[in-house]
Formats: sequence, C-alpha cells, structure tokens
Amino acid sequence: MKHTKSGVEDLKIAYIGGGSRGWAWTLMSDLATAGDLSGTVALYDIDYEAAKWNEIVGKRFTTHPKAKSRFEYKAYESIDEALSGADFVIISILPATFDEMESDVHTPEKYGIYQSVGDTTGPGGIIRALRTVPMIEYIAKKIEENCPEAWVINYTNPMTVIVKTLYSVFPKIKAFGCCHEVFGTQKLLAYMLKTEYGHDKIPLKEIKCNVVGVNHFTWLTEAKYKNIDLFPLYKEFADKYYFEGYNESADDNWMTTDLLCYNRVKFELFRRYGYIAAAGDRHLAEFCEGSWFLKSPEQVKEWKYTLTPVSNRKEGLVKLLEKSRQLREGELEPQIGDSGEEGVQQIRALLGLSEMVTNVNIPNYGQIPNLPIGAVVETNARFTSDTLTPMFAGEIPIEIHPLITRIVGEQELVVKAALERDLEKAFVAFMNDPLVNLTKEDARALFDEMVENTKEYLKEYF
Amino acid sequence: MKHTKSGVEDLKIAYIGGGSRGWAWTLMSDLATAGDLSGTVALYDIDYEAAKWNEIVGKRFTTHPKAKSRFEYKAYESIDEALSGADFVIISILPATFDEMESDVHTPEKYGIYQSVGDTTGPGGIIRALRTVPMIEYIAKKIEENCPEAWVINYTNPMTVIVKTLYSVFPKIKAFGCCHEVFGTQKLLAYMLKTEYGHDKIPLKEIKCNVVGVNHFTWLTEAKYKNIDLFPLYKEFADKYYFEGYNESADDNWMTTDLLCYNRVKFELFRRYGYIAAAGDRHLAEFCEGSWFLKSPEQVKEWKYTLTPVSNRKEGLVKLLEKSRQLREGELEPQIGDSGEEGVQQIRALLGLSEMVTNVNIPNYGQIPNLPIGAVVETNARFTSDTLTPMFAGEIPIEIHPLITRIVGEQELVVKAALERDLEKAFVAFMNDPLVNLTKEDARALFDEMVENTKEYLKEYF
Amino acid sequence: MKHTKSGVEDLKIAYIGGGSRGWAWTLMSDLATAGDLSGTVALYDIDYEAAKWNEIVGKRFTTHPKAKSRFEYKAYESIDEALSGADFVIISILPATFDEMESDVHTPEKYGIYQSVGDTTGPGGIIRALRTVPMIEYIAKKIEENCPEAWVINYTNPMTVIVKTLYSVFPKIKAFGCCHEVFGTQKLLAYMLKTEYGHDKIPLKEIKCNVVGVNHFTWLTEAKYKNIDLFPLYKEFADKYYFEGYNESADDNWMTTDLLCYNRVKFELFRRYGYIAAAGDRHLAEFCEGSWFLKSPEQVKEWKYTLTPVSNRKEGLVKLLEKSRQLREGELEPQIGDSGEEGVQQIRALLGLSEMVTNVNIPNYGQIPNLPIGAVVETNARFTSDTLTPMFAGEIPIEIHPLITRIVGEQELVVKAALERDLEKAFVAFMNDPLVNLTKEDARALFDEMVENTKEYLKEYF
Amino acid sequence: MKHTKSGVEDLKIAYIGGGSRGWAWTLMSDLATAGDLSGTVALYDIDYEAAKWNEIVGKRFTTHPKAKSRFEYKAYESIDEALSGADFVIISILPATFDEMESDVHTPEKYGIYQSVGDTTGPGGIIRALRTVPMIEYIAKKIEENCPEAWVINYTNPMTVIVKTLYSVFPKIKAFGCCHEVFGTQKLLAYMLKTEYGHDKIPLKEIKCNVVGVNHFTWLTEAKYKNIDLFPLYKEFADKYYFEGYNESADDNWMTTDLLCYNRVKFELFRRYGYIAAAGDRHLAEFCEGSWFLKSPEQVKEWKYTLTPVSNRKEGLVKLLEKSRQLREGELEPQIGDSGEEGVQQIRALLGLSEMVTNVNIPNYGQIPNLPIGAVVETNARFTSDTLTPMFAGEIPIEIHPLITRIVGEQELVVKAALERDLEKAFVAFMNDPLVNLTKEDARALFDEMVENTKEYLKEYF
Repeated sequence: MKHTKSGVEDLKIAYIGGGSRGWAWTLMSDLATAGDLSGTVALYDIDYEAAKWNEIVGKRFTTHPKAKSRFEYKAYESIDEALSGADFVIISILPATFDEMESDVHTPEKYGIYQSVGDTTGPGGIIRALRTVPMIEYIAKKIEENCPEAWVINYTNPMTVIVKTLYSVFPKIKAFGCCHEVFGTQKLLAYMLKTEYGHDKIPLKEIKCNVVGVNHFTWLTEAKYKNIDLFPLYKEFADKYYFEGYNESADDNWMTTDLLCYNRVKFELFRRYGYIAAAGDRHLAEFCEGSWFLKSPEQVKEWKYTLTPVSNRKEGLVKLLEKSRQLREGELEPQIGDSGEEGVQQIRALLGLSEMVTNVNIPNYGQIPNLPIGAVVETNARFTSDTLTPMFAGEIPIEIHPLITRIVGEQELVVKAALERDLEKAFVAFMNDPLVNLTKEDARALFDEMVENTKEYLKEYF
Repeated sequence: MKHTKSGVEDLKIAYIGGGSRGWAWTLMSDLATAGDLSGTVALYDIDYEAAKWNEIVGKRFTTHPKAKSRFEYKAYESIDEALSGADFVIISILPATFDEMESDVHTPEKYGIYQSVGDTTGPGGIIRALRTVPMIEYIAKKIEENCPEAWVINYTNPMTVIVKTLYSVFPKIKAFGCCHEVFGTQKLLAYMLKTEYGHDKIPLKEIKCNVVGVNHFTWLTEAKYKNIDLFPLYKEFADKYYFEGYNESADDNWMTTDLLCYNRVKFELFRRYGYIAAAGDRHLAEFCEGSWFLKSPEQVKEWKYTLTPVSNRKEGLVKLLEKSRQLREGELEPQIGDSGEEGVQQIRALLGLSEMVTNVNIPNYGQIPNLPIGAVVETNARFTSDTLTPMFAGEIPIEIHPLITRIVGEQELVVKAALERDLEKAFVAFMNDPLVNLTKEDARALFDEMVENTKEYLKEYF
Repeated sequence: MKHTKSGVEDLKIAYIGGGSRGWAWTLMSDLATAGDLSGTVALYDIDYEAAKWNEIVGKRFTTHPKAKSRFEYKAYESIDEALSGADFVIISILPATFDEMESDVHTPEKYGIYQSVGDTTGPGGIIRALRTVPMIEYIAKKIEENCPEAWVINYTNPMTVIVKTLYSVFPKIKAFGCCHEVFGTQKLLAYMLKTEYGHDKIPLKEIKCNVVGVNHFTWLTEAKYKNIDLFPLYKEFADKYYFEGYNESADDNWMTTDLLCYNRVKFELFRRYGYIAAAGDRHLAEFCEGSWFLKSPEQVKEWKYTLTPVSNRKEGLVKLLEKSRQLREGELEPQIGDSGEEGVQQIRALLGLSEMVTNVNIPNYGQIPNLPIGAVVETNARFTSDTLTPMFAGEIPIEIHPLITRIVGEQELVVKAALERDLEKAFVAFMNDPLVNLTKEDARALFDEMVENTKEYLKEYF
Repeated sequence: MKHTKSGVEDLKIAYIGGGSRGWAWTLMSDLATAGDLSGTVALYDIDYEAAKWNEIVGKRFTTHPKAKSRFEYKAYESIDEALSGADFVIISILPATFDEMESDVHTPEKYGIYQSVGDTTGPGGIIRALRTVPMIEYIAKKIEENCPEAWVINYTNPMTVIVKTLYSVFPKIKAFGCCHEVFGTQKLLAYMLKTEYGHDKIPLKEIKCNVVGVNHFTWLTEAKYKNIDLFPLYKEFADKYYFEGYNESADDNWMTTDLLCYNRVKFELFRRYGYIAAAGDRHLAEFCEGSWFLKSPEQVKEWKYTLTPVSNRKEGLVKLLEKSRQLREGELEPQIGDSGEEGVQQIRALLGLSEMVTNVNIPNYGQIPNLPIGAVVETNARFTSDTLTPMFAGEIPIEIHPLITRIVGEQELVVKAALERDLEKAFVAFMNDPLVNLTKEDARALFDEMVENTKEYLKEYF
C-alpha cells in the first residue's frame, strides 16, 4: 500500500468467501467508483471455481468504461497467498450449504418452533454457530500468520459469534462486523419524516441515532434529525400504523419480496418498551419469547412479516449463479455505482482519506457499561486513519436490558462451547434460548437431531 | 442502648408486623436464650389486636423459668412510637391477606401458568410486589423519621424488591434481608456427607459456601467442608439420586409436609449448569422457563416437589391463631431454645458481642461484579460491630448469568414501576417474566384480572 | 429558536461575563460569518457598563458589510433576563480581578514556588478555584431556573473545577468546557509534518488524535495523519529539537510574545513517558513536581518557556479596554472571519446543521475507564443534533496514570471543599499539590496568606 | 496431606529463604504449639548451610517437651525437591545482602533524600524491587512446576511488588502476602482504649477495622470496638498527644529500640486527612512528599521516629547468627508459644480446621473499586477451607486517594519494568516517586549510581 497525493495505490484487499453470493459484486461495483484507490482484490473461496468466476466478473467491473479505479482481480487456491500482505480482509462466507441451513431453520418446526431467519440466534443460529466457529478460528489464525496488521471486515452471520471468535483466537486482530439492518430503520425514520411530516429527501446519514445492543437485536435510545427529537414522532407513527403496519416502498436494493415487512413487530416493541428496535422484524422476532411473534405461521401473518423458507434461498442461489454466468459471459452489463453499502467508505476512512461514524460490531471496551467487557456489541464508532474508536453509547435502558443481556450471555456461552468443541456446553445455551421453550427431553431430542443433520460440518466435536 | 461489662441493656427492638404468623415467636424464643441482652420489644401491626396478643405471648416467653434474658414486650398503636429510638427494626409483614395471595397464585392457572410459591417472582410475585412496595415505602419513611440509625432486618417476601425499596426511599438505611433457604442447601450437603461419606454431625456453619444470585435464586459457586471440595461429591450425589430424588429426613423445624421436596430440580440444575442452586425446589422452579418444571401439576409431581395451594396457608393460619390463643392462655408452654434462625446472632454481632459471616440480601456495591451496582443481591457478608461488610463473591458464572441477570432486570423494573405507581411499566416486567410465556393479549388479560382481584391494595396506582 | 429550510432563526445566546476580555469579540466575529443563524446575543456581566460596551461592539460586528448573519446584541442588568429562554449559554468570566490573580501567582514565590500561569492548578489554581466555585454555583442555579434545556459552554479557568461544579449543582445541565490547548499541539504536529517531512498545508482537523487527561494536562495516546502514525515521527522530532527547542512561527492569533514556547517541556515529557503531552509548556509544567521545570526562573529559562507575570495581564487589559473603545467609537474596524475557535461550529452542530468531533471537558461516564466516574475529563466527543457523545478514549497508560490521577483527586477534593465552603478540606488538597512541596507549617502560612489576600471574594467561607 | 479426625497429618510446608533471619524460628515456635498438625518442613536457602542450621534448630523446637506437634525439619539443596508436593510455601528471602541494602538506603542521602526503611518504596524500594522481581519470577515458576496447588505466603519486602510478580508469572497461583504493620495500629488503638478510656485487656481481634491501601501504606476507614466508633476517640487521642507523641510500652516482640516510634506521623496524617494511617511511622513517612517527614535527620527527630541505618541491621544479623549457634548447640532453649504472628492460624484456616478474617495483600478483584483491577492491594479477607475471599473494602476516600493511587501506579510500573528487564521504564517510576523530587539530571545520576552499586544482582538487565 502506498499513499500518493491523490489517494492510495497498491492496496491489497483479500476477499474470503463470496463465491456463491451477490455481496462480492456489490464490493466490485463500489470499488469501481472509488477513483482514489487502486490495487488488487485477492479472491479465495473453498470452491476455487467460484473464486475463479468472480475473478472474471471482477475484471468486467474494473474494465467497464464507467469505472474510475483500476483493481486487479485474482483468484487464489491457497488462503495464505490470498491473505499474504493484505491491507484489508473481507469475510463473507456461507458456513456449509443451504442443506444444513434447511435443517437449522426447519427441523425445530417439528417442536412448534418457527424461525423467520434462523442464522443468528434461536436453535438454528446456535447450530450454525457451532459449525462456523471452527471455520473462523482457522481464518483468524491464517490472518495472524499472513497479515496481522490488516483490517478485517466481517459480513457473515452469526455476526456476534464470529467477531467474538476472531478476537478470542487472535486478540490483537483489527476486526469489526458490518450489518445494514440499522440503516433499514434509519430509512424507516426517513420515510416517516417524509410521509407524515413532509421532510423530503433526507439523507440517511442525517438521521442521528444512538445504537445499543447486539447485532440484529439493536436498539436506538436516541434518534434525531436536525434538532428534532424523533421519539415523540415515532410514537405517533407507531400508534397510527400499529394495526395495519407500514410498508415503506420497495425500492431498496436489499429488500426483495420475501423479506418485505410492515414493521408491526418494531411498533409493538416500541409501544412496549419505549425504545426503537432497529433491525428487520424477521430478526427481532427471533430474540423474543416464541409466544410473542413466532408461535405459528398464522401468528407471523398477523404480525405481517414473513418466514423465510430455505427453499427460497436455494432458488435465489440458482438465479445468482445464472447471473454470475451472464456477467462472466458478457450477457449482462456490470452495474457501476454506489450501492449504499459502507464497506468501501470504511476502507477509505481507515486509509485516512476521509472519516465517518457508523454502527459496527466490536468487543465492548466499556462503550456499553452495563454489558460485560469483552462481549461483542453493536454501537456507533468513528473511523479515522487506521483507527476505529467506539462512541460511548451509555447504559442499555432497564426496560430492555434483561432481553439483551440474556442474549449476550447465550452468545458468549455458544462461542465458549464451540471453541472448546463441547456440545454439552452448547446444549446449555440451546436450552436457555428464548425460542427453545421445551422440556429438557424435547430440547435434547431436537438438539441431537439438528447436530446429526449437520454432522458433516461438526466433525471436530466428536 | 447501653453496653455493660456483660452485654447490652436497654436495647430496643421494633417488630413491624408479625401479628399473624409464627416468626415472632421464634424471635421471642431466641431472645429468651440471649443472656447478655435485655430491653424492650416494641410490637406494631396494622391489626393492633394481633400485636396485643403477641405482647401477651412475649411476656410468657420472657418470664419463663428457662429464659436467660429479660425483655419487655409492648404493643403500640402508633408506628412512630414503636419505632422511636429503636436500635433494631424487624419487618415481617403479610402484604394484604391470603385472599390476595390466592389470586396471585391461582389466577394464572387459567392460562396454564402454575406457581409453586407465588410470592417472589412470576406473575404472583410481581403483583404481590406492586402492593408491597407502597407499604415498605411508608415503613422506610417512618424509620428515617424515628430511628435513622437503626439496623433493619427484613424477613418479608418478595425479599429483593423490599430491600431495594428500603434503600431507594431512604438511601442511608442500614438494612438487610435474611432468608434461610441457603441453609436448607447447606443442610442437604451435610446430609450428603453423612449418608454417602459417613461424616456425621457436621455443624452447618462448617459447610463453607460462596453464595451468589438473588434471593430464592441463589447459587453456590464453591462449597467446602474442611479441605474437601464438595462439588465432585455433589456431582456423584446428584447423579445417583437424579431419578428417585433425595428426601432428607423431615426433622427440620421449617419443613412441613406440604413443603417437602426431593431436590430433583436442584439436581437437574446442577447437572445442567455445574453449579449448586441453593434454595428449595419450589422457589427455584419459578425462576426458570415454565416448560422446564412448571408446565402442569403432573410435571411438578414428576419432579417430586409440590405446589403450595393457598388453601393450605389459610388452614395453617387457623392453626397458628389457635396456637397463639393457647400460648396466651397458658394452655401451651413456650419453647425456649435456639431455633437455628440467625436473627438474634446477627443482632449480637452488630452490637459487637460476637462476629459472624452469613448470607444476606443487600445492594450490590461490587461484591458481584457482573451484576448492576445497586441491584439487591444475595452473598455472604460479615457482621461486626455496627458494620455489615459484603464478601467479594466474584462474577456469576457464564452458564447461569443469563438466567440471573434476566431476573435482576425484571425485579429492578418492578420496583421502579411500583415506586412510580406505573402499572404500564409493571406490565412490561410482567410480560418479560419467564413464567409468563403468553401472547400479549393473554398476558394483558391475566395482568388486568390479577390487578382487579387485588385492587383494594393497589389504590395508589389509579 | 426556529428551524427553517436554510438554518435557524430566533436563536438566543446568553453570554455571561466577557466584559473585560477579547473572547466576546471572537464570538461576534465568528457569528458574523454564520449565514445560517440569526437571533439575539444577551450580554450579562457583573460590570453592567462592560456588557453595555460589548453591546455597542456587537452591533458594529453584525452590521458590518461583510457580516452574513444578523444578531441583535443586548446588555442586561439582570442575569435572569439574560438567561431566560436561552438556547445556549457561554460562560467566560474573570473570577475576581487581576489583583487577586497577582496574589495567586506571586505570593507562593516567597516560598520558592514559581507558577507559569497560576489559573488552573498549583497553589494559585486552588485559591482561584475557591473563589470561582461559588460564582459558578450561582450561575448554575440561574441556568436551572431560566433555561434548563440550554447548552452551556464554559471557557473560564480553572476549567475542570468549573465544569464539575456545574454538574454538581445542576446534574441535568447540558454543559461542556472548551479549550484550544490541544489544537496548539495539533498545530505543532502539522508544523512538524511540514518542516521535517514536507507535508504542507495540512488542515488541523486532519491530524487525528486520541485525547485523554484533564484540561491543560491532556495527553495524546495516538496521533495520525492519513495512515501515517505520527508517534515515531514525533520521537525523531523531539530528539532532534530536544536541546534547542522548536519554535513554531508566531502567526497564531492566540500566541503573543510572552506566551511563546519552544516545546522543550513537551519534548522532555515525551522522551520520559512516550506519550505526547498536549498543552502549552507553561501549563504542563505546573502539573509536575516543582523541581522538574519550575524550580527557579533560571530553570524556566533553560526549558525555554516563560513565566507570565500578572503585570503583563494588567497591561494587556489596558490595551483591550482601549481596543474596546476604538471598536465602539468606530476608530477600529471589526475583523469579520473565522477565528479558528470552535464555539460557533459546536453551536451549529448541536443545532443539527452539521456535525463535528472535537475535544471537550465533561464528566467521565466511562470514556476513560481508569479514572473515576463523574470526574471531569478531557477527551474527544461528537457533536450532533442536540447531543454530545464522548468517544471511548481508553485507559490512561500506566506511565502517566499516576501523574493524572493525582491531579484528578486534587481537583475533585477542591470542588468538594469549595461546595462545602470548607477551607480545611481545601488545605488538604493544597498540601497534596505537586508544586507545594513544603513543610506543613510553611504550607499553612502560605495558604493563610493567599486566603487573606483574596478574602473579599471568599466571604462565604468564614 | 491427610485429614484425620483430630487434624491434619503429612502436611508439607516448604520454607524458601529464612536462613539468615529470625522469622523461621517464629514459625517453628508457632508450629510447635499446633497440636492438630504434623508433617514436614522443607527448608531451602541459596545458602545451603544456613538452611542446614535451621534444620538443626527446627529439630530442637519440635522435640522440645512443650511441643504439641511433631514436624520433621529437613534442608534441601534443590529448590525442586523442597517444593515438590508442598501444601504450603513460605517465602521469606533477603534479596541480595545488607551491602546492597546499604546502597539502597544511604546513597540517596547524597541528594538529600533520607529513607527511614528503604525496602518498600522510595529510591531504595525501587532498586530493591528491580533485583527482587527476577528472584521471585524464578520461585513462581518453580512453584508452578512443583506444587501448583500449594498456598503461597510471602513475608518478603517489597510486598506489593512481590505479590504482583507471583501473579504475573503464574496467574493461577494461590498466593497472598502477610504483614503485621496493621496489627501495630490495632495495638495502638487497644492502648488508647486502655490508657484513655479504661478498657483493659482488649484482644486485638476485637478491634474491628476496615483496611484499604497498599502494604505499608494502609489506612483504616473504620475502626470499632464493640459498638464504639473509635474514630472520635482517636481524634481526641491524636490531638492530645500530637506534640509529644504517644509511645506504647515496648513489650512487643517485633519492636526493638531502633524501631520505636511515637506515632506523631500517624497523628499528623489523621489530623490532615481524617483517616487512620495503619503502619509504622517509618513506613508511612516514605510514601509522602519528602518535605513532610523526611527532609532531614533533624526533621525525623522532630517527628520522633527513627531512620534505620543499615549498620544496625548488620549488627542485628551478627546477633541472630550467634543466637542461631546457641540454639543449635543447645546453649539457648527454644521458646515455644504463640508469637502473635498469624501464619500458622492462616494455615489451619486454609486446611479447614478453623476460620479467620485478617488483612492480606492480594490482587484487586474489585474489593477496592477505585483502584485498578489486578493491582495488589491490602484489605481484609476471610480464610476458610482452601479458600481466601477478600472482603469488600469500599472506595478509598477522596482525601487520600491521590496519595495511594500514585503509589499504586508507581509499583505497577516498577513490576512491569522489572519483568521486561527495562531500566529506562524503571527510571520513569523512579522519577515519579514522592521522595525523588530532583531535577532529571540529578535523578539520573542517583539512579545510575544505585544501579552500579548493586549491579551484581542486576545482571539480567544488561
């Protein structure tokens, strides 16, 4: 990496995973607009062919007439080569396949446990964590060996568990986890200001929020626009749309039909606790007692959000693979332009080319004084030259503290269990999960079945 | 109060409540054996006649030939007079009547929620707290006015909520809450050492424990006898008796038939979490998810403990009243002797006549670093001259931290709601309770019915 | 105050003090450039005529042809009227007169104690604090009565003591203290980058620092420009200029001849501790043992900085009064333009018109985990809509922690003593001060003399 | 080790050091009175002959007609053999010889720095620490290898530094440091109760104190006898004897003429700060600014305590060696009886044969919330079966916090410097010391000379 008058040259970004999903293309698109950067994107995936395909796609982006930057895209068969000397590492893997995810999400339905996502918490999130932690452990060690000074950005779920694992394995790692769920809520607040109060075209970044909690169960304890306190406005808004729900227009690039929601869960949580839950309803529901929002598919419908069957994901994958082919073979034109994702902006800020404040997942150094030090939490943080500084976020309010601290404890225990390859300890966390309100016998049977279904990826536990 | 060569004279103990229960007599008996103390016991009860009856009973104790101390027992119609100049205040009230308790315990059964005690946590404990807090507020203010330097010992449930209220209303109060549930577990460990390992006649005080948690949901993180670590022994013991349970002989003066338990819940919690839950099974069960131990009366039977119908309590009261009559009228001889309760020992230690270490309920000053400062917790503490010093108890282990912190949060919120007379805030806590795993509509209906049933004692909330 | 499309109208800024110093004019100048603001500046000074004069000066600024904003300047005889309904309050008072300051600074010289400033710490700072705290107490109460929602910006010394007093008297106050000493160090780093490394014209805001400590004894634990770590560069720089010193060119608007310094104290502290002391040498020296930098005027000369005799300040005042006259009477043209001070930028950010990160003095909520919660500390903080959020600054490094914590303790005790009007307690702090390395008898004699000299302003202590 | 009905058999106590001092004989005497213990005392000293001599002396104690216990005393040439399988380890070494101590204590006098002890803090304490830490590092590693489960009792100075080193090197060590200085202050309080208030024959253990601080700079924040608050009494006492001092009768077995003191320093500190400094005046003086009590030998005389020239220690050693000879050769009869030292009582409590509360030096887990976690502090702690539990001691009062935290920081830094063998870092601590109020040049010259004088024991630093 080399700083020049006009920016940074010879940057090396290692991209781990990404073979089977669209995220990599978003990065390619965003990088193509970053005129002050150039260098290499090293692609590594356990499926080398997938990385190779992305290499071809990457070239199409970087050579596109609209591209302002030049990056070389190169697939590697060896993770060491991909990481060696990297300035940034992006982790975006799929832990196992959608077949395992199918078990995570749908096996618990036999016991009346429905999950709207199944990749973060609940029985599905826990089993997914068990197979993910060893993979991340491996990656963390490789980073320590090959590029200990690199900044590591994780996009993979379960976010909290993964960031905790990175820091547990390599304590000096400079890692953080990124997630756009909070932006969705800021967008909702912007829509509210538009439709209810006539403030049009408010840039998301002007909705100033204080963020606390853990990934996908984040809460806003303050939200302001200029000097307007958005809480009283949101109260009116939540009351007004409580029953019918509010469906912001579907122009978001990350919201497809099956993810649409009417924010009824969000409104309900606000009316109950007085703070703004800041993630999609599908995620929020999974952190609550099962009886509240996930008792049955009918109840989900009443709350006007959706369960996400893994079959949809499988179909989505087919489409992505087809899109990949089209991009590779020139049938489809790469879309160059700012995606709204913040990855490249964060990279620029860490390079000292700008600065920014946004929400990230990192260990708690005290930014949330009433959560344990060292637990991974989500709050705002400031990105400046080679530095990421958490904002002091304050205590989690008493009303929601028990909900969040319970989850924090569960996730800490899951990581501990996984690092020790201890299924019994993992089962303790499993039993404690809010969605797993079963007798011990049933819980055991379910746990065992889910482990059995995914055992190919859990070999180290036996 | 006056220190003499041989002890303390002119001690004034104010006893608030106690009119309808047997606790007062235990104190009378213990006081009668304390040869180095003398003074006055001022009796106050909202039912003046009940206090008056205790005055008569008290005289029978103190004039008994075996009594070693002389105390004057005197009932007061005014709480101010009873408290004025007191050196110690004992709070042992029944918040409302058993009719209200009947609603607390049995109304939730309509929604499939069973409670084995119903006075500490769960829907019953919360509603009980709502009517108790204002009573305690009143008493705390009276203490501040009449005897701000007095030591205040609370025996009433819900313990945590009451001690928190005392400190919230009068922050400089010298108060603590006492409970014998932990002794029951020490007794179980002593039985274990006897039946399994042949160590006979072990004084309870020689079972050295580290206590953490909140009242009735206390846990031992260490237990030793001489230099024997009791944890591996307890593991064998819990495994051996897991299915059939272990029923220590019923010679305890606080264990009557309907309270008998086989410790299966305790064994289950140990096998699950690796720490010794240290309260009666009836209490422990109520802090867990309803599906674990309180799904149905049948499940309770399987776990070999008992629900306590309030009708039993009502019958018990009739017997106590009859016993009171017999004591007053000389038909029954007062039993002089050390009850095993620690109240008088604590008084002696605070007077500087001895010292002791035992478990108490006081605010967290840091004795449990991973619970919030100011929350009321149960740990060991040392009693010396006019001083109560908590032992440093250490962090609550990660396995059980989520269970306990959830309860701490709930109880903090209940006290806040009650002090603000805010039923909506109370309902938030109610919804969060582990036993109340209901839809919001059902939870609301239940809450409203329970409030309605006990509204005579909740007038200040409307 | 009213938000419009283009900014904020009807803003009310109350300016307390400022009658005798140039700060008020800086604000006037900066406000004149703020095209998106308009409203009233209410001027209050205990010397009404001085406020009146500023009213006239203010009008000259706001009616100047280059002025982009319109503000009404109005002097008030009543502090209540000045504060009533204010959106912002600026505190910039002179506690007593330069006669008292003369005693603060020069009386200790009899005992061999030299002070280079004498308004923050050391014997002079402590005595000054004693007379300032009651004044600030009064102002804080007036703010609570008249404009409890206002943001309060303090520029007066002793900074730490004043901000602590504001929060002690009115805990919900929205106050912070501002000081430009850290900017001076950022400027030094910019000069270093220019003269040593050829990086020219670096905006100060691009020198990214992590700030910890207390006002005037602030330290940088990190400093970066783009992705360049400035610490190794500063090490070379400090070594190179250690003996001769480095005198940045004197183009700064806040540096006049008698304040010039050669940064030798700063270099010495860096070489000793490995962290960048970030205030003027004159301030830094006063927080250290007297023998290090303030043993004698000769030693001060060796370290190439200056003592500031109060006679200079008196002369400066004469010049300022003359300048005031010239401004009022039209002999001097107001200078419209951005002063580099951040007050108006902070106001704009708190109004939601922009955002910024800068260093401020506020209570420690945990932003510095190894200083006491509640002590006033200086760290970076983010200004957004009606919100000031501290950055998490991290622990103070072990090498300098003892130096800083000692000062924190002294200042906490001074405030306590002053709020309790307890001279004995103040004397304890006085004895503990690093500069007061005297026998108790000498310390007492000095303290008594200094109190006697300034007794007109210490009446409430007797 | 084996528990029996009547006590413990086959106990192994390893005694490291002790060859040249009388401490070992105190232990021998105390062990001889412990009828419920028997086993082996393994003696190890770098001077094998000295250990051998103690073996002979030990046999005389254990075979004495009055001895109630039987211990085998055995000298070892190998530390591994001495430690192997030990249940307890006692560390009582002399770091280097009295020649090095002569340099520690007297070299600084050239610069006007007087030290009354010179083994804990100040320039002497720091240099002593530098040579002690590597020795303790070695011992800690040997303990980890040979007897990781043993309880380790340290009697050596500098206490804080040594205990910190033990825990730094082997974090799971079960170590604590013991010191009788606090008992001296309890004894003073008992004398006060006797001479001033007529309470005779008060057992020291009935003086109940809350202890905070660091070794030799410990403070009582509470002191009670029965229900008598001793603070107001001590205030009268300190006032009465302030000028002449108070010299308790010299019947103490640890107070010889040259250690006599009149407690004037203690009284001064109480009058200044309102808390009872609880160590000998000679120790207390060294933690304060040099000008307070150690400006000159004359000032020391005024404060009526004594400097301890190392020549005295050398003479004392000659006497001890002669006493050793007499004991070995039967010219002197061993004194069997309870010495008042607590070592054997602590051993018995840790074996589960009794329990006790006393003051110890261990890492801060939160027992003093306003000192850093992990720093070694002195507070009360409870000894029970194989367990040492700190009492919660509360915050250090604001008046004395700066004094103590400064020392804590210095000692933390000294240990860090020594573990890293970094003399430059050590010099930073040296410069920060309250007694070293020198210019940097003088400080450097002194430091270098002291290092040079003791370089034989500082080889690892070069």
